[in-house]
Amino acid sequence: MKASAFSKMGRRTQAPPISWLMKLPLDHPSLISLAAGFTDNKSLPVAEARALLNEILGSRKTGRMALQYGTTVGDAQLRRLTADRLWQLDSSGGTRSTASLIDRRRASTVRAGVGPSPRELKEIYSLERAVITSGSQQLLYMLTECLCDPGDVVLVEDPTYFVYLSIVQSHGLQCRGVRLAGDGIDLAHLEQTLKALQRSGELQRVKMLYLVSYYQNPTGVTTSFVKKVEALKMLKQFERAAGHPIYLLEDAAYRELRFAGDDVPSALAANGAGERVIYAGTYSKPFATGARVGFGILPEPLLDAVVRVKANHDFGTSNLLQQVLSRALASCRYEKHLSALRHRYARKAVAMVKAMREHFPADVRWEEPRGGLYVWARLPRSVKSGLKSKLFQSALKHGVLYVPGELCYADDPTRRKPNHEMRISFGSATEADIRAGIARLGATLSELL
Amino acid sequence: MKASAFSKMGRRTQAPPISWLMKLPLDHPSLISLAAGFTDNKSLPVAEARALLNEILGSRKTGRMALQYGTTVGDAQLRRLTADRLWQLDSSGGTRSTASLIDRRRASTVRAGVGPSPRELKEIYSLERAVITSGSQQLLYMLTECLCDPGDVVLVEDPTYFVYLSIVQSHGLQCRGVRLAGDGIDLAHLEQTLKALQRSGELQRVKMLYLVSYYQNPTGVTTSFVKKVEALKMLKQFERAAGHPIYLLEDAAYRELRFAGDDVPSALAANGAGERVIYAGTYSKPFATGARVGFGILPEPLLDAVVRVKANHDFGTSNLLQQVLSRALASCRYEKHLSALRHRYARKAVAMVKAMREHFPADVRWEEPRGGLYVWARLPRSVKSGLKSKLFQSALKHGVLYVPGELCYADDPTRRKPNHEMRISFGSATEADIRAGIARLGATLSELL
Repeated sequence: MKASAFSKMGRRTQAPPISWLMKLPLDHPSLISLAAGFTDNKSLPVAEARALLNEILGSRKTGRMALQYGTTVGDAQLRRLTADRLWQLDSSGGTRSTASLIDRRRASTVRAGVGPSPRELKEIYSLERAVITSGSQQLLYMLTECLCDPGDVVLVEDPTYFVYLSIVQSHGLQCRGVRLAGDGIDLAHLEQTLKALQRSGELQRVKMLYLVSYYQNPTGVTTSFVKKVEALKMLKQFERAAGHPIYLLEDAAYRELRFAGDDVPSALAANGAGERVIYAGTYSKPFATGARVGFGILPEPLLDAVVRVKANHDFGTSNLLQQVLSRALASCRYEKHLSALRHRYARKAVAMVKAMREHFPADVRWEEPRGGLYVWARLPRSVKSGLKSKLFQSALKHGVLYVPGELCYADDPTRRKPNHEMRISFGSATEADIRAGIARLGATLSELL
Repeated sequence: MKASAFSKMGRRTQAPPISWLMKLPLDHPSLISLAAGFTDNKSLPVAEARALLNEILGSRKTGRMALQYGTTVGDAQLRRLTADRLWQLDSSGGTRSTASLIDRRRASTVRAGVGPSPRELKEIYSLERAVITSGSQQLLYMLTECLCDPGDVVLVEDPTYFVYLSIVQSHGLQCRGVRLAGDGIDLAHLEQTLKALQRSGELQRVKMLYLVSYYQNPTGVTTSFVKKVEALKMLKQFERAAGHPIYLLEDAAYRELRFAGDDVPSALAANGAGERVIYAGTYSKPFATGARVGFGILPEPLLDAVVRVKANHDFGTSNLLQQVLSRALASCRYEKHLSALRHRYARKAVAMVKAMREHFPADVRWEEPRGGLYVWARLPRSVKSGLKSKLFQSALKHGVLYVPGELCYADDPTRRKPNHEMRISFGSATEADIRAGIARLGATLSELL
């Protein structure tokens, strides 16, 4: 029998090109991979996890609780700690002011209408709005299921997180890429894009704007608070014509991996956030990727829908892992680990940038990372960086891997995909490998430029 | 704005009625719940999990590996152990013969054409066919995504596992219920159902037959090997008219919770299994529900599709949890725990059945459980057991909860839902609560019958 029984989704869902890239180093151990988005192996909190698990499993009562089913929405204590932590981040970030967020927001609401009321804030930063998921990836998936039918449109940054593009592709959705500046999306281009969709009668299909707002994967760009406020306002303006809410999905996966500059408040602190902002966060990257605990803060009708869908996915993320994170947060272990992690990544980022200055030709451009795991290198437009390019093949021969920039661009019929960029990561490689890998990449580039 | 931005799935997905049922005891602590499908709290392997985690996290090397991302398909060692274990179960189960499965199958292939060739067997029980998932629930979800478009038909047992019915409902699928006898589905009714679908032109929409084949949830029925072989043969006969493969999805969630009688080989050991049988298993129930590790053995094109979809869901189940299960299986800890667990459930099942004999009116019928977590009680047809029935309300007043049988029946337009049955579980309640709960339920029944 030749025909397959697959559904449309079964047929549509492709193997991500990145998976091939990730497997290469397994077959060629001498390759240095600056492609993997893995976290630093030596940074993983082995001793901390052991101590936490011994606490949890050291008593029958807490041990049994951790080894039993929990609720689908997630552990209440972990949800409370998560909401509290976000509140703290959003109220102390951005400025170094010691005034409480409520006071500052109240003042700014009066001034500029950018902040929610104290009552709204209390509702937003609440365990009642929080759900625990298997990594933030699962939340991105379920949200897309809850909001998007095939043919619907998601607005994304251009470029953006490529695994989100796989979700989008698998569900048969359309994308529009919004250009990215140094402080987040180009608002004029967002407006232009929305207007074009309105003219073509597709605005009713626009369901959300997806922003990777901190140390973006792949570019390292952080979106300013003002841009979040303005983007939210703009989406709101187009809602009447769309006929339904247009959500702002803020993916803050790298927020805690900050090693320079101040934190920026999340879109949750913007006016109107309570009904339109979805915040997706994770404890995988700042604590342990092998633990796969993520979370979301969602407007209520959407939270309910996501929890109903999660009941069908898995009726709840592993309780044992949730207890580990809950205890890590409640004790000082999470903060301590995070602080060490930030120092480590800061050092590795410095090593990478220093090596790039030394080895890369002068016409390659990049920004110094202030957090996250990535540097985004822009080559002269004439130099292609794709999987089949001379550069990529030559880099392979030199024994170094990067992620071709074109993999991070959505299929958007309104523009051609740029293909002269590279994502290089200081996440998983050792400092020595970073230096050697950049030297190899520099040699490759020098040969070709 | 009144309109919602929800997708069709977002709108379709309902809160399972069971979630209301599960929450009731939280608000009424004096209620005895015989409704929950939770495992026994005291049986949870706290000391074992602690020892395993100390082993894993006691060395930096294994600790870091466990706390780092793994691969999407799952840990190779755990997949190998899983395939080996199934091989062992399938080759020793059913008969107490010591001949190897290959020899027995070779003989039986010659005799009756029910077994695959030795080469096929080697291919089937292989890590290459295995995937690790977040509970078997996630596998059921992803399979349904990969195979079914809205309007497609899934054949299910009548009654069946109600959370699978939620997945089906959420994806906009149709169901046909196949009547259940004491040794599995009624094959004549399966044939009749397939023929009716062929006549109505809907056979092309039939994608699979879903069987909960061991100590079924909710009825406790175990499907005989012969019925699996015959069902598979029958599906094959209708494939030409369907125009595509029709899969047999065997959900073996309760297989290891056997406490009486012999094990039965899975459908994997049937002729033609290699291309058509999907085996869904779990370590949640036999080890720890809080750990949420399940698995599947799948025909290759389907395995690839599921792994691609899983890359979008969560790119892999928590590596830490996989390491725990892998070590539990490789050491004797899993087996030891399972053996204790079986004794515990056997005792609780005996306590329940004894109390039922004592307290239930004579015209309530049930089978003695030989495994799993459930007893299925059939009342006289005139007595309704639904959520709004006198019986259910009266049971509530008496302080005892059961799962109304009608919740376990698919929406199938070709028959009315029976509503005179009850699923009662000896899984999570203590022996004392089982006795008291059954006494209360008996009193309720006696008042009404």
